[in-house]
Amino acid sequence: MPNRSKGSPVGRIYLDNNSTTSIDPRVAAAIEPYIREAYGNPSNLHSYGRECAEGLAEAREQVAAFIGADVEEVFFTGSGTESDNWAVKGVACAVGPGKHIVTSPIEHGAVLGACRYMGELGWKVSLLLVDGYGRVDPEAVRRALTDSTALVSVMLVNNEIGTIEPVRKIAAICHERGVLCHTDAVAAVGKIEVAVDDLGVDLLTISGHKLHAPKGIGVLYVRRGTEIHPFIHGGHQERGMRAGTENVIGAVGMGKACELLRNEWREDAARMKQLRDRLERGIVERIAEIQVSGHPENRVCNVLHVTVGYIEGEALLLSLDLEGVAVASGSACSAGEGDASATVEAIGISPLFRNSPVRFSLGRDTTEEEIDRTIDVFEQVVGRLRDISPLWTNRSG
Amino acid sequence: MPNRSKGSPVGRIYLDNNSTTSIDPRVAAAIEPYIREAYGNPSNLHSYGRECAEGLAEAREQVAAFIGADVEEVFFTGSGTESDNWAVKGVACAVGPGKHIVTSPIEHGAVLGACRYMGELGWKVSLLLVDGYGRVDPEAVRRALTDSTALVSVMLVNNEIGTIEPVRKIAAICHERGVLCHTDAVAAVGKIEVAVDDLGVDLLTISGHKLHAPKGIGVLYVRRGTEIHPFIHGGHQERGMRAGTENVIGAVGMGKACELLRNEWREDAARMKQLRDRLERGIVERIAEIQVSGHPENRVCNVLHVTVGYIEGEALLLSLDLEGVAVASGSACSAGEGDASATVEAIGISPLFRNSPVRFSLGRDTTEEEIDRTIDVFEQVVGRLRDISPLWTNRSG
Repeated sequence: MPNRSKGSPVGRIYLDNNSTTSIDPRVAAAIEPYIREAYGNPSNLHSYGRECAEGLAEAREQVAAFIGADVEEVFFTGSGTESDNWAVKGVACAVGPGKHIVTSPIEHGAVLGACRYMGELGWKVSLLLVDGYGRVDPEAVRRALTDSTALVSVMLVNNEIGTIEPVRKIAAICHERGVLCHTDAVAAVGKIEVAVDDLGVDLLTISGHKLHAPKGIGVLYVRRGTEIHPFIHGGHQERGMRAGTENVIGAVGMGKACELLRNEWREDAARMKQLRDRLERGIVERIAEIQVSGHPENRVCNVLHVTVGYIEGEALLLSLDLEGVAVASGSACSAGEGDASATVEAIGISPLFRNSPVRFSLGRDTTEEEIDRTIDVFEQVVGRLRDISPLWTNRSG
Repeated sequence: MPNRSKGSPVGRIYLDNNSTTSIDPRVAAAIEPYIREAYGNPSNLHSYGRECAEGLAEAREQVAAFIGADVEEVFFTGSGTESDNWAVKGVACAVGPGKHIVTSPIEHGAVLGACRYMGELGWKVSLLLVDGYGRVDPEAVRRALTDSTALVSVMLVNNEIGTIEPVRKIAAICHERGVLCHTDAVAAVGKIEVAVDDLGVDLLTISGHKLHAPKGIGVLYVRRGTEIHPFIHGGHQERGMRAGTENVIGAVGMGKACELLRNEWREDAARMKQLRDRLERGIVERIAEIQVSGHPENRVCNVLHVTVGYIEGEALLLSLDLEGVAVASGSACSAGEGDASATVEAIGISPLFRNSPVRFSLGRDTTEEEIDRTIDVFEQVVGRLRDISPLWTNRSG
């Protein structure tokens, strides 16, 4: 049982929604029957199985409707990470060793890790350069394609700095050359429109726990006709493409979350953008020697990523936590690895700043009061840490 | 929302616990806070993350204590199927193509599917013969080993017919030759003792939803020092061996279920055995031309697998369902594939019987009244179906 009182002041402020989100109470209500009553295996023909199969089918329809896919193109997985692994490895194995994969250096670790592994096993992997905003140039994709390129994977929104990538253009360039295009849309859903036909991608990843559904459920959209091997072999589940008894609780939660988002995301996104802009203005106005990362316009509504000059990032995060403000230094999936973020390195942030990246990621429930208190707390904490930082005291200029 | 009234008579009897089990109310209570309150990402350093990391750590301790492992040897996955895939593919990739894997034809589809796939990608796969009880002969394993054998995978308990395999002997023979041994123990936990050091295996699979925890969570036990590649790449989760944000709800549920089993399984197993034997006696005494599958002694306490001569299995299952009795024809993971069960084929059941396999799998909550009613219903249904079966009417003898 979690202990709320330990080390956590009352009135915590959660600005780490790109790490994970709370489960929506309506999602919790939707999964409740599958915890307390309906426990059949959807594969079974008897009544216990059928009631769970119906829940799963409805969930698949809800996800499909949200991203504009057919239900036959929606495959439930165990996480966004599994979906990314499946997309990369499943396409790579379908075309065979020696073929070529193109991706960017600012992808989620799941795409980068899967590409690196396939590189070790005999596939060729190219990393595209990104500009200072973290944008991939579609023309660079065009130049990277060779006759042996099988897959391009570029994320729709960077999870750390919030930059929106030109995935529609990249997909079009891929298709001119008969190359498949995958996008990790985990940080995009609920913030910008995510419609598979508009984007034109062949494969698209989303994750439940980033959109107020439980952890442990993901989706891979696979366009009909795409040549891809299954990643997990065994039973006939997910049309024979992803074996294993279905995570009914997770899928039902994800379906409900998608249904809610479909109706509510635009309003939520507009509110998050207002609050994010307020946060950005407040911080930039009140704190010197701070840099905002990401593209000024093509940036998602809920992310403010800053690097704070002349202090250490870990002290900053811990001090903020002690004041009740939860933020991240970058991707939760890279936390604790000690290295600087690959994204922060790729966009060329100067050494004096790159040690203290802070990602504020707002959520649907973030309030104006929380933003204003965060600005105050952030100003105080940065001031305190700089007061004891020799880097700050001895800086030139 | 599941609709209990549709097509399901009041007072249903659930004898399909090898397909899946209900979530224990105490497990439901343990996961409740992680649905309603504690939603942090265990990777985060802030207080939200820490409270979930603590829940995850406790769950790992509970699983480790139950199977006699160290916590560093317990890796959460998305299902038993994923664990099986990881064991087979992770070892295969670590040793490289061309190496040899030995398994049995009665393994779960996840092991067979993973082996078949690695076979297509360039590994060699041997299938061992089994006897009429579905037992693998340890000496056959010895004969199958070659200098290039990397892995032997034999399940601890067959999920369809309940036969217990001589895994301890098989593991010892493997180790004489420096070969790794994996066992799928999904159908064994809670029915027989499962202790990794006693078995001597290097890799062992269990699944949450077979032991009254949610679907969508599995464990792979990996003995310290075992050479295995990660299967899902990306973040540092699970000690860098299984990337992806942890399914906290699933893991906490699985931990709690293991803690409960550790204290209760022996008593539950003794009661299930009594009831299973009562069911077996009743059915064998009252129904002619019926065969009990599996080993007479080395058979798990909760399974009764029979093949019923001269009728069709699907009609039998559906008729039982209409009478409120939920059973399976075999593995839920093979349901709907139309083929005869590989296990039923491997044990050499004669054609007149193999079309109607019925697996009764009892659970912790099965009652004597349910067993007695099941015997009555089964007798009536078999009688009705035989009355309209030309096979039965025209049988010789």
